[in-house]
Amino acid sequence: MDKTKFILDEKDMPTRWYNILPDLPEPLPPVLHPGTGKPVTPDDMAPLFPMDIVMQEFSPERYIDIPEEVQAIYRIWRPTVLHRAYRLEKALDTPAKIFYKYEGTSPAGSHKPNTAVAQAYYNKKAGVKRLATETGAGQWGSALALGCMYFGLECKVYMVKVSYNQKPYRRIMMETWGAKCVASPSTDTKAGREILSKDPNSPGSLGIAISEAVEDAVTTKNTKYSIGSVANHVLLHQTVIGQETKKQMEMAGFYPDIIVGCIGGGSNFAGMFLPFVKDKIERKKPNLRIICVEPQSCPSLTKGIYAYDFGDTVGMTPLFKMFTLGHTFMPPPVHAGGLRYHGMAPIICHLYRLGLVEAQAVPQVATFEAGVTFARTEGFVSAPETNHAIRVTIDEALKCKQSGESKVILLAHSGHGYFDMAAYESYLSNKLQDYDYPETEVKKALASLPKVPGA
Amino acid sequence: MDKTKFILDEKDMPTRWYNILPDLPEPLPPVLHPGTGKPVTPDDMAPLFPMDIVMQEFSPERYIDIPEEVQAIYRIWRPTVLHRAYRLEKALDTPAKIFYKYEGTSPAGSHKPNTAVAQAYYNKKAGVKRLATETGAGQWGSALALGCMYFGLECKVYMVKVSYNQKPYRRIMMETWGAKCVASPSTDTKAGREILSKDPNSPGSLGIAISEAVEDAVTTKNTKYSIGSVANHVLLHQTVIGQETKKQMEMAGFYPDIIVGCIGGGSNFAGMFLPFVKDKIERKKPNLRIICVEPQSCPSLTKGIYAYDFGDTVGMTPLFKMFTLGHTFMPPPVHAGGLRYHGMAPIICHLYRLGLVEAQAVPQVATFEAGVTFARTEGFVSAPETNHAIRVTIDEALKCKQSGESKVILLAHSGHGYFDMAAYESYLSNKLQDYDYPETEVKKALASLPKVPGA
Repeated sequence: MDKTKFILDEKDMPTRWYNILPDLPEPLPPVLHPGTGKPVTPDDMAPLFPMDIVMQEFSPERYIDIPEEVQAIYRIWRPTVLHRAYRLEKALDTPAKIFYKYEGTSPAGSHKPNTAVAQAYYNKKAGVKRLATETGAGQWGSALALGCMYFGLECKVYMVKVSYNQKPYRRIMMETWGAKCVASPSTDTKAGREILSKDPNSPGSLGIAISEAVEDAVTTKNTKYSIGSVANHVLLHQTVIGQETKKQMEMAGFYPDIIVGCIGGGSNFAGMFLPFVKDKIERKKPNLRIICVEPQSCPSLTKGIYAYDFGDTVGMTPLFKMFTLGHTFMPPPVHAGGLRYHGMAPIICHLYRLGLVEAQAVPQVATFEAGVTFARTEGFVSAPETNHAIRVTIDEALKCKQSGESKVILLAHSGHGYFDMAAYESYLSNKLQDYDYPETEVKKALASLPKVPGA
Repeated sequence: MDKTKFILDEKDMPTRWYNILPDLPEPLPPVLHPGTGKPVTPDDMAPLFPMDIVMQEFSPERYIDIPEEVQAIYRIWRPTVLHRAYRLEKALDTPAKIFYKYEGTSPAGSHKPNTAVAQAYYNKKAGVKRLATETGAGQWGSALALGCMYFGLECKVYMVKVSYNQKPYRRIMMETWGAKCVASPSTDTKAGREILSKDPNSPGSLGIAISEAVEDAVTTKNTKYSIGSVANHVLLHQTVIGQETKKQMEMAGFYPDIIVGCIGGGSNFAGMFLPFVKDKIERKKPNLRIICVEPQSCPSLTKGIYAYDFGDTVGMTPLFKMFTLGHTFMPPPVHAGGLRYHGMAPIICHLYRLGLVEAQAVPQVATFEAGVTFARTEGFVSAPETNHAIRVTIDEALKCKQSGESKVILLAHSGHGYFDMAAYESYLSNKLQDYDYPETEVKKALASLPKVPGA
């Protein structure tokens, strides 16, 4: 009997996070201070983050110990399961072998708690009482609400208005864990009020919500900011995913030929592939393909430019070197709310630039078609974000059918779609639409790229 | 390091279901034909169920092999995890040891697929093309939609109208798996049309929905009926839960003093406790307490009478000896939709009558209070049904705090509450209400108990 699932015991859960920084073939471009154009220092970041997290952002150490308090929480749902998608393979009639690492069994339903728990822990340790953050589709906001619950911190979430209205259940979930959640732009911050005064019907964007959360953190007592993707430390925390998967693929007796994942800020997929890309950098696995999948409507890697830009809309953050559509870009309201960010994790952008990872943009309807195929074979109903990765997984498996190759495809499955059934209903009733690449919008947003002082 | 979770490998998954019938200290009262008053025969049941399932309903065999095709599907999410609730114990400051067996990781989010998959398989094997069923809160309907998807059967679900309106996501989930779902009472059946003609605003009930599904099955070509609880074969299929848990409790080094679960039709909890009640029947564990928890608003065990009654409202089914509130009883619209059935599984009623299990009825608001406590300690957001069992688990743990006893409490956790966030919102905003025991309604319904011919 072939195994359907590859399960690790708690004692085989990683006890260290893997930090890619010392293994990069070229150093990561520094994050710059927008006022001076000089690399930001740990002191610059101290108003936003506790020092443990700041130091992780810059750390030259290849491995960083996971505190026992964080491991104790991880053990509530980790290690997560690696599945073999036998039924999907059979339905596609492909010789490809498809595996998926499923992060949907966490209490928040996605990979996001991997970093939320760590961030809540370090803030608690530093004496912080309250965290402020933004959320798009609500996966990150609910994860931080959960993390703050575990460590007894207050939590305030600015949720992009279009998602706040589309997904009320996500807000209630945050409240169930004791957090407060408001629609962004909100009247709770200066940034929000300014945007509302210009456009009272603003649907919000992740960039705007970041501006609000950052302002809240720097202006409220005992409060720090928390970010759910993009930053180095977030990708670091997510490497539990890839480290577990490496062990599980060994149990299965395979090494992937192709790894596929969706990218919004990039944390889930980086968490999966960073421990694997190491093998590619070291030329142990030169032919490994790593495919980052983004929505055609918000195509930062495939259509953005590689430049220094703000992380938020208002321009309160430092400058990050990344593929960006411009920090003022307003993406169309596609259902994969988590994949609507104008930029991308600097580490992923750097690896893309170096040719170590690939990128593909896919249209919305085709992703739901893939998600329904997955639900009607494996059974699990996936998040709209994940459906992007499933689309490309299926495409690659069908290529194998054509070529007769029996490739091993590893899918980073970021979470379930139980809060996204309204989007499935739109798809099933043929109401879901694709959005063209928003060329004019991007052009306008790119014109607002900040000048780097002294550059 | 103490273990947080007890995980079985696929190879340790049960390969047989456990049948309590031969181990009962007194035989189960027979199911009667409503026309003759004689025990129903397998032939009487053949119009509704395929013969393999009919035979399971009467089987004298202690163990029944689980077909490999069913095991292959189970392996997609089984064995499920047994958790130790360290954080809940600590929050309650109790010396009790609390374990919970979590069925929420199945694709449908509850224990229900354990029998849905088996029923779909046996129907497929018998050449059936389509199944009809009823659902209350939607957990069973989505499970059968999933089961039918796995085996390529069509599926029609009659969903109690009040839940259909409260939980649209459940319907969309069924549609995502390819099933058809209508609000019951519907105009698709004679039974539904008759009820609507008397009360166009009927909120529906599980009893009405059963009438519709049974009528559909007996009047539609190539169609059989499928039931999600109550029947012997359903409880049988659910015993994978208790068998796994017994092994996992052994891994943990404990045997439960108290087992707690919620009961609507009784299948989840019976699936848990039947392998344990065997130890009580055999006097190996005479002090084991098994507590069945039901809503105060639909208290079949604690307030019903032990009599022969129909399983449905219209009176199309055979007569079951059970604790019943009367087959015409209309329960108030509490959120634990799965616990709104007028009767109870005959096996559970029989064991209750014999003093082998206990019963408690709890009010709605207190169950949500318990559910939020669970969410704010363990993290998982539970179904309203499950919250009933959590309430009593917490009560028993607090009694241990009083007495200083370090009892081992095992909670049958039937599933997650991701589709029930509206109910959590009602609770969090103090809008949730309790319902008094509907004494007048029950009295009226009990007056309509059928006469058993020849009795």
